[in-house]
Amino acid sequence: MAHIDGARLLADLRQLATFGKCGTGVDRISFSPPDIEARHWLVGRMRDAGLEARIDRLGNAYGTSAKAARAVLIGSHTDTVPKGGWLDGALGVIYGLEIARARIETGASGVGVDVASFQDEEGTYLPCLGSRSFCDDVTEAEISAARSKGGRALSEALVSAGYDGALARRDPARHIAYLEAHIEQGPRLEVERRRIGVVTGIVGIRRFRICARGQADHAGTTPMTMRKDAGAALFALASRVAAEFPRLGGRDTVWNIGSIELRPGAANVVPSEGEMVLEFRDTQAVALDALERHLLDWIAAANAQGKVVIETQPIARIMPIAMTPEIGHAIAEAARTLGAEPLTMPSGAGHDAMVLGRFMPAGMLFIPSIGGRSHDIIEDTPEADIVFGCEVLAETVARLESALAKR
Amino acid sequence: MAHIDGARLLADLRQLATFGKCGTGVDRISFSPPDIEARHWLVGRMRDAGLEARIDRLGNAYGTSAKAARAVLIGSHTDTVPKGGWLDGALGVIYGLEIARARIETGASGVGVDVASFQDEEGTYLPCLGSRSFCDDVTEAEISAARSKGGRALSEALVSAGYDGALARRDPARHIAYLEAHIEQGPRLEVERRRIGVVTGIVGIRRFRICARGQADHAGTTPMTMRKDAGAALFALASRVAAEFPRLGGRDTVWNIGSIELRPGAANVVPSEGEMVLEFRDTQAVALDALERHLLDWIAAANAQGKVVIETQPIARIMPIAMTPEIGHAIAEAARTLGAEPLTMPSGAGHDAMVLGRFMPAGMLFIPSIGGRSHDIIEDTPEADIVFGCEVLAETVARLESALAKR
Repeated sequence: MAHIDGARLLADLRQLATFGKCGTGVDRISFSPPDIEARHWLVGRMRDAGLEARIDRLGNAYGTSAKAARAVLIGSHTDTVPKGGWLDGALGVIYGLEIARARIETGASGVGVDVASFQDEEGTYLPCLGSRSFCDDVTEAEISAARSKGGRALSEALVSAGYDGALARRDPARHIAYLEAHIEQGPRLEVERRRIGVVTGIVGIRRFRICARGQADHAGTTPMTMRKDAGAALFALASRVAAEFPRLGGRDTVWNIGSIELRPGAANVVPSEGEMVLEFRDTQAVALDALERHLLDWIAAANAQGKVVIETQPIARIMPIAMTPEIGHAIAEAARTLGAEPLTMPSGAGHDAMVLGRFMPAGMLFIPSIGGRSHDIIEDTPEADIVFGCEVLAETVARLESALAKR
Repeated sequence: MAHIDGARLLADLRQLATFGKCGTGVDRISFSPPDIEARHWLVGRMRDAGLEARIDRLGNAYGTSAKAARAVLIGSHTDTVPKGGWLDGALGVIYGLEIARARIETGASGVGVDVASFQDEEGTYLPCLGSRSFCDDVTEAEISAARSKGGRALSEALVSAGYDGALARRDPARHIAYLEAHIEQGPRLEVERRRIGVVTGIVGIRRFRICARGQADHAGTTPMTMRKDAGAALFALASRVAAEFPRLGGRDTVWNIGSIELRPGAANVVPSEGEMVLEFRDTQAVALDALERHLLDWIAAANAQGKVVIETQPIARIMPIAMTPEIGHAIAEAARTLGAEPLTMPSGAGHDAMVLGRFMPAGMLFIPSIGGRSHDIIEDTPEADIVFGCEVLAETVARLESALAKR
C-alpha cells in the first residue's frame, strides 16, 4: 500500500490554511483573491506530486495521474463560507493530493488517482458550480444569471479571475469511482468515540416558508375565543411538528425551525401575521414525502377552523442521494483493517458527492469534528484523526483497485 | 333627570376630533400642538357650560361645578396614541361635559358634576400622569426622569406647553365617586348585541420577557437528541401555555405572546438564542399569581433537563383594580331603566379609573366598539350608542345623588 506521509499531509493543510487566514480559521469565499491564490498554489503542489494539473475555465483545480488509463477521483472543495474552518473541503482535496503523490512515489501501477478542488461548493455564486460543470449538469444560462448576495455577477468574477483551462469533465471510461473525505460537521463520531464514519447517503432537504394571516386585536380586551392569532397558529404547528415528527420520521430524520417572526410584534397586540421557516432532512425520499404529507394535512386542518389562514411556500427541495454500497463497504473494511470500527451514518449536509453520486459510483468518509463545530473559525480535528482518515482512504483506493482487477 | 342633548354631544365630539385629525381618526399625542389646542378649546367649552375651568400645571383640563359642595367626578383623557381613534378617551370627557352642562341647565341642585381630561393617559411620557398627579400618586423625581420614546424630556414638554394653573387634586370632602365611560375596545358588546357594559374591574397585567440560551448547531448534521435548541424550548413553553392556561385561568383570563425572535435566524442553523414576550391579564390577583407560579414551574422543569437555560425578566406588573360594586349596580340599574340589559365584564385595557379607583369609589361604563377596533383610525361606534351611553351615565349620576341623599 502507498505510504501516507502524515507530516507532509498536515504541512500541506496548514499551508493551504494560510490563504485567507482568519484567526484559527479561513475566509476564502470563491473567487476572492485568497481563493484564487490557493488554487494556483494547489495546482503547483499537484505538479510537484507528478500530476498533470490545470485550473479549468470555471476555476476547478484538477490534477490527472496521466500514466494511468483508469482512475479513482478524489476531491472536494477549497472555497469556504465567510469566516469558515480550515478543514471543511480542504481536507478532502489534500487527501487526494497526498494519496495520488504517495501512489506515484511507491510506483503503484494500475489505477491512478485524479484530484479535484471543485469550484464554489459553498455557493457564494452557485452551489456546487464546479462539480455540476464537471458532470455537465449546469447550463450557461444558470451561469450567466448567477450573482453573489452582494450582487456581483458570476460572469464578472470569472472574467476577473482569468481562468482559461479546458473544462475538466467526468470520463466514464476513466473514472471508476469518486471518493470524498470530509470532517463530519456534527458531534456523532466524537460522542460515540469513533474515528471513521462511512456515509450511507446525503440527505435530501425540504424547506418551507410557512406564513399565517390572522387579525390584530387588543390583547387585553379581546376574549381568547374571538381571536385570530397568527402567532398561536404557528406555535400550534411547531408543537405538532415536535410531537409527531419523531414518530413519523426515521432514526436519522432531522428538522429545524430556524426563524420565526410575528407582526406587529407588540406585547399587547394579538399577532396578525407570522412567518416561520421549517426544514426537514432525511436520506430517504419516501420519509420526506411522508413528513411533507402530514405537515400539509395539519395545515389544512388548522385552516379548516376558519380563523387563521396558513400558507406554505417551498423554498428548497433537494433530493437525497445514496452513496454506492460497495464503496461504503470498501471504506468500512479499510477502516477495520487499520484497526477502527467505523460508524455508519448519513451526511446531514450537502457535499460535491451529492452531484458526483448521480453520475458515478461514489463514497464518502467522515472524520471527527471537535465539538461537532464547523462553518466557524473554531472548527478543528485532532491531527492523529486527520492522518488516520487519509490512511483509511488510501487503503480504500487499494481495495477498489483490487476489486477492479478481479472483475 | 337632566336632559342629554344628543346633537350637542356629537357636535362636541366631532369638534374635538378636528384637533389632530388624521383621516377618520386623530393623532393627538400628549403635548403635541393639537393636544394643547384641544385642551384650550375644552376649557372654553367647560366655561360655556357654566363650570369653573382651568388647565393645571401638568396639563389636566379641569372643570368644577362651583356651586355644589359635593360632586361626582366624570373624566377620561383627550390625548391619543399615534394615529388613534376619535372616541378613545374623548368620549368619557365629553360625556362629563354634557352631563355637567345638562344638569346646570335643568337647575339640578345637590350634587354637582366635575369634569376632567387627565394628562397623558396613553403614556407618551408617563402613563396616567394626569390622574396620578390628581391623586397625589406621582413624584417630582418621576416627572423629572420621564422622556418620550423619541427622547424628549417631559420637563421640556411642560415648559414648552406653558401650563401654569394650580394642580387639580382629588378632594375626599367633595368627590363622592369617579365615573369613566369608554368605548369597549373589544368585540364583546357588539357580538352579544348589548349597548352597555358594566365594568367589574380593570385587569392586572403580568408581562415577562422570556429568554432561552442553547447552542447553535448545523441543523443537518446534529442529531435531534444532541441539540440545545433555544427555539424548540420556547415553542414547548408556548405550547404548554396554550394547553394549560385555559384550565388554570378564570373565565375572563387573557394572554398573549406578541413577539418572538430566534438567533442566528438561519433555516439551517439550530437556534442558539430566543426571546419572546408573554403577558397575561385578569381582574383577580390570585388568578395572576397562580398563572405566574405555573409558568415559573414549567420553566424550572425545562431548565432541569440541562439543555437550554430559560430566564424570565418581568417587564410589567400592574395590579388589578376592582370597580366599586355599588356604582356598578347603579350603572346597571340606570341601563335597565332606559331599556338596556347590560353586560357585566372586566376591562382588559388600562384606564384612568385604574388610578382613581384606588382613592375613591369608582365605576366604568362601556359602549360598543364597531368590530372591536381601537387604537386605529377606523375606531368607531354608532351615534345612537354614543348618545345612549351618555343618557345611561346621566341617569347613573342621578341615582348616586339619590343614594347620597338617603344616607
